[in-house]
Amino acid sequence: MKEDLAIGVDIGGGSVKAGLFNRQGKELDKSVLKTNSELSNARFLEIIENTISPLLHDNQILGIGIGSPGPLDSETGHLLSSANLPLLKNVPISKTIQNHFSLPVYYENDANCAALGEFHFGESDSYDSVLVLTLGTGVGGGFVEKGRLFSGYKGNGIEIGHMTSVIGGAICGCGQKGCIESYFSTKGFINRYTEKTGVQLNNAEEFFNLVRSGDSEAKTILDFGILCLAETVRSAIHLLNPEGVVFVGGITESWDLFGTDLTNQIRSKIFPVLNERLKIRVGKNLAGSLGAASLVFSKGKRGSNE
Amino acid sequence: MKEDLAIGVDIGGGSVKAGLFNRQGKELDKSVLKTNSELSNARFLEIIENTISPLLHDNQILGIGIGSPGPLDSETGHLLSSANLPLLKNVPISKTIQNHFSLPVYYENDANCAALGEFHFGESDSYDSVLVLTLGTGVGGGFVEKGRLFSGYKGNGIEIGHMTSVIGGAICGCGQKGCIESYFSTKGFINRYTEKTGVQLNNAEEFFNLVRSGDSEAKTILDFGILCLAETVRSAIHLLNPEGVVFVGGITESWDLFGTDLTNQIRSKIFPVLNERLKIRVGKNLAGSLGAASLVFSKGKRGSNE
Repeated sequence: MKEDLAIGVDIGGGSVKAGLFNRQGKELDKSVLKTNSELSNARFLEIIENTISPLLHDNQILGIGIGSPGPLDSETGHLLSSANLPLLKNVPISKTIQNHFSLPVYYENDANCAALGEFHFGESDSYDSVLVLTLGTGVGGGFVEKGRLFSGYKGNGIEIGHMTSVIGGAICGCGQKGCIESYFSTKGFINRYTEKTGVQLNNAEEFFNLVRSGDSEAKTILDFGILCLAETVRSAIHLLNPEGVVFVGGITESWDLFGTDLTNQIRSKIFPVLNERLKIRVGKNLAGSLGAASLVFSKGKRGSNE
Repeated sequence: MKEDLAIGVDIGGGSVKAGLFNRQGKELDKSVLKTNSELSNARFLEIIENTISPLLHDNQILGIGIGSPGPLDSETGHLLSSANLPLLKNVPISKTIQNHFSLPVYYENDANCAALGEFHFGESDSYDSVLVLTLGTGVGGGFVEKGRLFSGYKGNGIEIGHMTSVIGGAICGCGQKGCIESYFSTKGFINRYTEKTGVQLNNAEEFFNLVRSGDSEAKTILDFGILCLAETVRSAIHLLNPEGVVFVGGITESWDLFGTDLTNQIRSKIFPVLNERLKIRVGKNLAGSLGAASLVFSKGKRGSNE
């Protein structure tokens, strides 16, 4: 008997990455193509097709899962626009890829894929429910309850990065003020540091190196970010009551600088009945393509985006 | 053919109210008994039984729904403790009432009952999902998606009153700081007014009368409360993506003083894709007993608390 396989596609800032996975999450093959900011809808769709094609061996492939940053419409399977690929507009990803390969296609925002990947392949599968936060360029979130992804309206559920942390606070990329993304993400740390010092950092690593070296401005910004994130996670926990809260994404590479403090603050602020059961931990940083593939495994043989 | 009926029981601050309802939400009979702060577990359970007994006509009663403030454990059907009935501890409500009447019993916190009542009887039944906020002594919340109540862990879901609105802000009854309940509830308005003026108000009506009479301190407190509530509702919308947000509870009697401003602020702060679909309105303030009865109608003939 052949094994069930799935293709997962991770549409990132500068590339499209695809992987062929079995149900154990083992990557059997992979493929990567670069993207650039000049791409039209048609050329972008071709690149996705060309990334997937080499993985279509004679195998039992159940379907194709695709994850990308939003804004997207997971119901119709359209990418509405992209910060990194500015010429794209209302790209019919699901339908095009489905027609091209005659396979079911499932499309969700990347944080939702990460949450589902964490549930299936990241040690959270025994949890009744898990809230996953992606801490990277921005802040994303996903929630899986009893194995079911809470996708929200057109895939916009659990946009934890745009929960308000500080009323009237720092301006966010979304146009509003005080979102947690402005206080605990690569963009947030860089912008807060420039505000305080005039110095422009290039990435989160530089920021955390400053913290490690004893830079008091960086430390103050991180401490306030931890407080903001703890309060935001508290609010989310009081709504959703997850059994597990898992942090993933590039910023968790510096977990040693904030993980214990963040965990303790969250625990000290939530209802005892929820705290007793709650597990808080840093995740495995699974490949985005595996998260996308888990859309396929979790949806089995039902129709696209159902 | 007899019609399907349900008994709903609303355990409030100073009384137990029960109603016999048909599927259209019409109250066919009702019964009320007072409670007092001296009650033991056993006496309290007797009062609940005695409130229900007169409603048990020879009819097709599907079950008994019960709502009370928390903390409770909806899975085991225990009221853990009560702010108004201090001698109560770990009261086995579901099991006792179920054994006494040989009927299925469903027990949830009162805000969850209100949300379910609003969905079934409050003009929200066409919504894909509805978030209900109860604005009264405190702030409660409930979320119904595709007809299903999001109960959370042991009934603790959607505790919107204890989302953090102001980091390091006013102390809340829960022991933490800055909860929205401290800024937009009867307790919140009274405490904030005393803080500012030294004057002790007795109820929300007095507070809103001051606003109406042009009291600038009261107006400032209300305006800040509106801002806080708008930001908190924004955060909840970005997580849950409800189609409807409905405000109920005693404070909505003064909706004319804050409803338009609150609605406009929420709409100005949320993602356009969510705003386009969203309905925001004040609810009907259905009886708590009807909300509790809707637990029965929504669960049909399944087992207690399943």
